[in-house]
Amino acid sequence: MLSNRYTLQAEFGDCDPSGIVFNPNYLRWFDASVHTLLRAGGTSLRTLQDKYGIAGLPLIESHIQFSHPVFVHECIDIQTQVTAVDRCVIALCHRVIKKEALTAVKASEKRAWTIPDPDGHSMQAAPIPDKVRDILVQK
Amino acid sequence: MLSNRYTLQAEFGDCDPSGIVFNPNYLRWFDASVHTLLRAGGTSLRTLQDKYGIAGLPLIESHIQFSHPVFVHECIDIQTQVTAVDRCVIALCHRVIKKEALTAVKASEKRAWTIPDPDGHSMQAAPIPDKVRDILVQK
Amino acid sequence: MLSNRYTLQAEFGDCDPSGIVFNPNYLRWFDASVHTLLRAGGTSLRTLQDKYGIAGLPLIESHIQFSHPVFVHECIDIQTQVTAVDRCVIALCHRVIKKEALTAVKASEKRAWTIPDPDGHSMQAAPIPDKVRDILVQK
Amino acid sequence: MLSNRYTLQAEFGDCDPSGIVFNPNYLRWFDASVHTLLRAGGTSLRTLQDKYGIAGLPLIESHIQFSHPVFVHECIDIQTQVTAVDRCVIALCHRVIKKEALTAVKASEKRAWTIPDPDGHSMQAAPIPDKVRDILVQK
Repeated sequence: MLSNRYTLQAEFGDCDPSGIVFNPNYLRWFDASVHTLLRAGGTSLRTLQDKYGIAGLPLIESHIQFSHPVFVHECIDIQTQVTAVDRCVIALCHRVIKKEALTAVKASEKRAWTIPDPDGHSMQAAPIPDKVRDILVQK
Repeated sequence: MLSNRYTLQAEFGDCDPSGIVFNPNYLRWFDASVHTLLRAGGTSLRTLQDKYGIAGLPLIESHIQFSHPVFVHECIDIQTQVTAVDRCVIALCHRVIKKEALTAVKASEKRAWTIPDPDGHSMQAAPIPDKVRDILVQK
Repeated sequence: MLSNRYTLQAEFGDCDPSGIVFNPNYLRWFDASVHTLLRAGGTSLRTLQDKYGIAGLPLIESHIQFSHPVFVHECIDIQTQVTAVDRCVIALCHRVIKKEALTAVKASEKRAWTIPDPDGHSMQAAPIPDKVRDILVQK
Repeated sequence: MLSNRYTLQAEFGDCDPSGIVFNPNYLRWFDASVHTLLRAGGTSLRTLQDKYGIAGLPLIESHIQFSHPVFVHECIDIQTQVTAVDRCVIALCHRVIKKEALTAVKASEKRAWTIPDPDGHSMQAAPIPDKVRDILVQK
């Protein structure tokens, strides 16, 4: 399954008055990590939009467990991996790793392969093309 | 159980290049809604910190289901409710309601009543005082 | 000149580890205030895009003076006013008012009326139509 | 004068429905760049707080010029440099450089060396210690 890892630093402005990372930032990093994962697979959201006319890969479900806070200026690894590819849905997991291999945050999420609705104002799930499935599954 | 509702508008800058609310903003709004909930109960995080010396009420688990996208400038209601109060943990649910009572996003979350670690650099769960339990449960 | 005022509360998550509003949030609020201002004038960015084919009203210059910090859960007013409308550029000012009429932050900004570049990938300034000028200036 | 450069990628979620970086993110990156600059000088905000009891280095003025939009997934350099160190104020400039050395955004800002107010709830400017001045000026 396609996987990816990147390192970032929790910035001062990512942290709240308690001095720990404000939780929405994890979703922001997970989203960035999915885009990085696509590039690691040799593609990108833009390419998928141009080739297949998709509206996007919106999050449809996320389950996040926060085990340890991350503090100002801590370096963390975000590890992201495809865990399953169903007909219209991609399942992924993310781990936020602090130093000494401590898992700070763990998440599983589902994203839908979506095309624009005929009305042009919303979006609907559609089957994932085989070539995209190959990118997500093979590596 | 203590509950709360407030209305907000999804701003242009809350939306991503797909024209829908960028998902981390939901966690941001849920957090704001918990703080509003505390005020609806006649208290606040600051008051709880001053009275009980807590470090905060960090999120320890969140399960979010995204059913419908919210678009630029849509007005939404965030409904938040305490669902259970365990020894050290408060369970809550949030609903993001679009017009015509459509639930766009649904979330259940757990937050820990935490005090500073003796080392001063982290935090640990602690029993929720009865007076706080009364605020969360009675209304 | 078109003007607008709205009240908001600085949320816990808008504040940094110093306990004051993290400065990028002011630009976020100013942007939201400009969109609110357009609606106060009976229009919206979406309407302007549909009617005149503009790409947007991107910020081209901003000068911000921070006089007083805003703290967690403080209520503030954002006052926004059009100050000039040149050929392709709208000048605005914003004031962030704390209680007792104290100005916490003051900003002047310029936004360009832009249309998509012929190449489709960027944008260029264009003359503001008279009907839009009337909306911005008359009230 | 102390200076610093780092490279980042404009993420999908950093961009608004126009497909360009939402302007508050520049202030977020400038703030992160100032913290990186301090580390490049062998110190950090935390160290300065511990050593000199400062409340922080809040932004007191910012003047930003936006010349070119930055698009989804573009790589940019943030170049940050100290330009002057007055009695209580540090002046800095930032440049956001796109490929081919194109300056997308240029900013000059002032930050105050601040200590907590005697009342404990706000902050006031204070003289910058010589050792800190040496860090900011010498390199």
